[in-house]
Amino acid sequence: MSETNQSINKKIKEIIEEMTLEEKVSMLHGNGLFRTEAVERLGIPALTMSDGPMGVRKDYKNDKWEDLGNSYDYATYFPSNMALASTWNTDMAYEFGVSIGAEARARGKDVILGPGINIIRTPLCGRNFEYMSEDPYLISKMAVPFIKGVQTNDTAACVKHFAANNQEYERLNINVEMDDRALNEIYLPGFKAAVEEGNSYTIMGAYNKLRGEHCCESDYLINSVLRKQWNYDGVVISDWSAVHNTENAAKHGVDIEMSVTDNFNEYFLADPLIEKVKAGLIDEKFIDEKVERILKLMFKLNVFSEKRVRGSYNTLGHREVALNIARESIVLLKNQDSLLPLKDDKVKSLAVIGENADKQHSNGGGSAEIKALYEYTPLMGLKMRLGGNTKVQYAKGYSKDEALKAELLNEAVELAKSSDEVIIVVGLDHDFDVEGKDREDLTLPYNQDELVKAVLEVKPNAIVVNISGSPVGMEQWINEAKAVVHSFYAGMEGGYAIAEVLFGDVNPSGKLPVTFARSLSDSPAHCIGDFPGVETVEYKESIFVGYRYFDSKAVEPRFEFGYGLSYTEFKYSDLTLKVDNFEEINIELSFNITNTGRVSGDEIAQIYVSDLESSLIRPKKELKAFKKVFLEIGETKLVKVKLNKEALSFYNDKENKWVCEAGDFKVLVGSSSRDIKLERVFTI
Amino acid sequence: MSETNQSINKKIKEIIEEMTLEEKVSMLHGNGLFRTEAVERLGIPALTMSDGPMGVRKDYKNDKWEDLGNSYDYATYFPSNMALASTWNTDMAYEFGVSIGAEARARGKDVILGPGINIIRTPLCGRNFEYMSEDPYLISKMAVPFIKGVQTNDTAACVKHFAANNQEYERLNINVEMDDRALNEIYLPGFKAAVEEGNSYTIMGAYNKLRGEHCCESDYLINSVLRKQWNYDGVVISDWSAVHNTENAAKHGVDIEMSVTDNFNEYFLADPLIEKVKAGLIDEKFIDEKVERILKLMFKLNVFSEKRVRGSYNTLGHREVALNIARESIVLLKNQDSLLPLKDDKVKSLAVIGENADKQHSNGGGSAEIKALYEYTPLMGLKMRLGGNTKVQYAKGYSKDEALKAELLNEAVELAKSSDEVIIVVGLDHDFDVEGKDREDLTLPYNQDELVKAVLEVKPNAIVVNISGSPVGMEQWINEAKAVVHSFYAGMEGGYAIAEVLFGDVNPSGKLPVTFARSLSDSPAHCIGDFPGVETVEYKESIFVGYRYFDSKAVEPRFEFGYGLSYTEFKYSDLTLKVDNFEEINIELSFNITNTGRVSGDEIAQIYVSDLESSLIRPKKELKAFKKVFLEIGETKLVKVKLNKEALSFYNDKENKWVCEAGDFKVLVGSSSRDIKLERVFTI
Repeated sequence: MSETNQSINKKIKEIIEEMTLEEKVSMLHGNGLFRTEAVERLGIPALTMSDGPMGVRKDYKNDKWEDLGNSYDYATYFPSNMALASTWNTDMAYEFGVSIGAEARARGKDVILGPGINIIRTPLCGRNFEYMSEDPYLISKMAVPFIKGVQTNDTAACVKHFAANNQEYERLNINVEMDDRALNEIYLPGFKAAVEEGNSYTIMGAYNKLRGEHCCESDYLINSVLRKQWNYDGVVISDWSAVHNTENAAKHGVDIEMSVTDNFNEYFLADPLIEKVKAGLIDEKFIDEKVERILKLMFKLNVFSEKRVRGSYNTLGHREVALNIARESIVLLKNQDSLLPLKDDKVKSLAVIGENADKQHSNGGGSAEIKALYEYTPLMGLKMRLGGNTKVQYAKGYSKDEALKAELLNEAVELAKSSDEVIIVVGLDHDFDVEGKDREDLTLPYNQDELVKAVLEVKPNAIVVNISGSPVGMEQWINEAKAVVHSFYAGMEGGYAIAEVLFGDVNPSGKLPVTFARSLSDSPAHCIGDFPGVETVEYKESIFVGYRYFDSKAVEPRFEFGYGLSYTEFKYSDLTLKVDNFEEINIELSFNITNTGRVSGDEIAQIYVSDLESSLIRPKKELKAFKKVFLEIGETKLVKVKLNKEALSFYNDKENKWVCEAGDFKVLVGSSSRDIKLERVFTI
Repeated sequence: MSETNQSINKKIKEIIEEMTLEEKVSMLHGNGLFRTEAVERLGIPALTMSDGPMGVRKDYKNDKWEDLGNSYDYATYFPSNMALASTWNTDMAYEFGVSIGAEARARGKDVILGPGINIIRTPLCGRNFEYMSEDPYLISKMAVPFIKGVQTNDTAACVKHFAANNQEYERLNINVEMDDRALNEIYLPGFKAAVEEGNSYTIMGAYNKLRGEHCCESDYLINSVLRKQWNYDGVVISDWSAVHNTENAAKHGVDIEMSVTDNFNEYFLADPLIEKVKAGLIDEKFIDEKVERILKLMFKLNVFSEKRVRGSYNTLGHREVALNIARESIVLLKNQDSLLPLKDDKVKSLAVIGENADKQHSNGGGSAEIKALYEYTPLMGLKMRLGGNTKVQYAKGYSKDEALKAELLNEAVELAKSSDEVIIVVGLDHDFDVEGKDREDLTLPYNQDELVKAVLEVKPNAIVVNISGSPVGMEQWINEAKAVVHSFYAGMEGGYAIAEVLFGDVNPSGKLPVTFARSLSDSPAHCIGDFPGVETVEYKESIFVGYRYFDSKAVEPRFEFGYGLSYTEFKYSDLTLKVDNFEEINIELSFNITNTGRVSGDEIAQIYVSDLESSLIRPKKELKAFKKVFLEIGETKLVKVKLNKEALSFYNDKENKWVCEAGDFKVLVGSSSRDIKLERVFTI
């Protein structure tokens, strides 16, 4: 904003005074599927919005869910938010935000509906790929720069879905119940950071109910927590059709009601609102407050300024950002006998097996779909990477069509037998990682387990690549597979990045932002909590989400939170700890990491804290810091980390506040949540 | 080749001795639509080929003209060869070659069927967009680095179509007749340079007849000219179905017969050849010579080596090459009142009118079609360039469908009226610039002239962009249009490059490689020569092709050869000339160019020679050198050029040789073929 806040506030007051009730209300609801109405008389434009977290969605007709069929609404297809979180690279989150913000702006949008930051409570949630992690600290650290990046381009981020939207089953009406500790320690911190640190100009109210109130009308969530506790002065936008009551929404709910239907004047915050105000049932001050917030948003976005950023889209630069994120997002899960990386000059013939090798994922998943300018599949990436000296052949291996099963499997096995090397690409697709429904179990669909087993039988050195937006089960073949690579949907350049990792151009450095369990029954939401619930879903597992559960209950996961291998090795040493708790708590720790292997690479060092004595039960350990460090061969770098009181605190639900109790703590420095390299006890 | 030529030649002899007649013959004809057969017994692979001059074509079934439907045969869609020639940038021709060679190699091809270098004899030829110029000197200077570039990537160029394939009408059988001067001065020099300087590993025999012989069986063209005069030891490949006789082709024709049909064994150089050899009608030495040349080609391509380049395709780098060529290829034809460049911050609303604004051209034209990874249209480019602050609206304006004419025109005019600025994008498409047929006249199809006139009437400042692969007529509106920009099909990034030029990010520097006539009847092939002929077409205009005719006969063209404006101005001065003809003829000239305008830019200085007295009639002037010079604002650069005897010579058809006659000559230095800035007479 080039003008002072004071003068803007004065202007806003003046504008509101000029407005009729009808004009004000026209700003509070969709008058198109992705926009409000303009007040042309006063020079106020419509506020336009667009999905979503992986890029700017194609354009729809104003009042119908029909593609406009334009030739110019292609977009850069960025990696999924889950893939971004796997990089643990906060600079990359910023670059992602800057780029997607520029694309939204260039496409004439005011608000981009992302990032998605709901907690991964269960591996089955259909929208996990749009979210980031099971851990609120990692989410906060990635979401804040993402949001700041977006907003450098005069585009508002819309962090979503506020709050506790952790499943798709019955999402419009399911009521979520959880205790105060879970809410404050697990489900709210990401949003708090997005608002307080990220200054997210907008936030999206979720579909579901929390404690009996629909989130978009929740006095508790929107008034008490968001506006009062967190001092939020931004705009709350409803998820599409998440409003159910005019008075509740008007008095303590969203500022803008969006919906999926074309009866715009009948929206709860449209004509019904005008009527209720006229009937004296709703005070017009509620409307004025919402309009004020929306106008303030428009000033923040330089909507009225000649100097508004114009943005850019489908640029080379944005594709480079997409590629760099993809490269750092890939997680090496297993690499027995150092099978990987493959040596290109040794591979005269390569069999690429599995439909996910040849499948484009951009145009699916629900609102996160993208009309990608292009999308490199792994097969294309491998062809590009290997060029003319390697015969790359493809067998589909599996299909949705059950009738083809035996034929495809047989063809794949035969191809595998006759090839030097074999890469099997399996996983999910957006029939499973999709808005509106959850998966039924962890099993790979389409008999993929059988395919992997059959190929490994004839080619024990076959490499398995899994592409999915959520954890999947690998138990049927994980002991036989020597090398396994995982990629969350990694955007338009993802297939090439996979090829680069497989052939060693890129040393993988991604770490899992979510636990991969051995079985669904090992997952806390499934063995303790309700899932998916009937009318109400109770989060009985409370704060024991993800690794907090697996660690505390000593359940062995298949791949733990924070896990990911490298083509090199890292040595951790020389942990020092300086604890100052004279006035404020200040903990300074340092340690060395040395690259002791044969290639350069990145390591993500993770710092966990364990509260050794506390009045309430606490998870065995919790992530409190991380550092991503690039090391040349033989290089050593000193890593310094500061922790404060917050890193030691928990939410005391008896006292309704965060507390830091005196006593013994342990700091744990690790390469994953379970591969702890250094630790030290200290006392507060 | 890593081995010595001697040892390779010995190896080749040994291999041939090992081969059966059937094995040898299997190498001389297609056994797939784009490959010969391998001789597996001896480890000789098939030779694979692919169209074409704008990128590597998608993959077809071996024996059917059906797309394989692969998801990985996308390619970088490069600018047309005509667009490349408009850059007059020889470094760019090299980069183009390097890139397309790498793409062919990565896609597993041995031979890329390009560049196309036939002379633009008539603006109507359907394949003009695949060729380069009406001038043999410009063609030679662009084709040689292109070919060298391709071949750095262990891929063979296949310069085409040898020779005199200057129209599509009846191309399979038309007989071309021309005098020796035309042949030697105009139609052959490009091929001579491609072979002698470019070392093109292969060359494609044309469809047509020359002087009664089919080019692929022409004793004169292939034996006398190519192999004897030019000492060519490369491989001659027939155009697809251009062979008509076994004995002629075997004894003095192509080395490899390719065709469009799937009866591979019945090709003239297949079973019929075996039979004729066995019957003693054809000496087996002819077959051995062809096999020897093909094996030599394979060694040149490192086919048998572990070190063969693997190539790469669809890379960022190749797209940058495509973009850079596109940028330099655009020609500014008119810019009255310095209307261009437009100022982006002044344009709140932009009307983009005309189907060519929104049309992708990659997937058309015949064998030159490309399955482009993507293609930016001008509309997309303008949207990308302008971003969110300019309302860009599109009206189709015209269509193939005559019934829509009035409606589309009306819609376009209305949109134009209500917009700040208007850009009309017209031209041809690959229904016209297409293999297999020629246009009927110069007129823009689909009533585009009417559209342009109607829009200019309501918006006199509307900018006209013409996209076509050949000259088109603009007489109906050229006096009314204040600013006109021309682009030959400029590849996948072409639409963005146009936007960059229109908004001044790029200062246009392209110069026409072909004359734009005012009317068809002004063109030499049409007013003097035959076109398209009946059975025979006589090139009665002889050497008076393109500007050689317009200059010599003082016919005013619309836009002359070498013409193109800039956003800046250039001053030419200080011509010096040093003529040394003591032993050899050495002419050194130098001159200064100064950028006297307000932006930096490139100028293409052209050096023409005029023979003031000669025994045979000569064109008024001929291009003999050019230099592309980048100049900052106010900068002056000294340009030095050397000319030798060749620049002064002509082909004396009485003596059957090139001669340089003593007498007076004039050197002309110009910004185009008619905008001569400096000149000087000298005597030899």
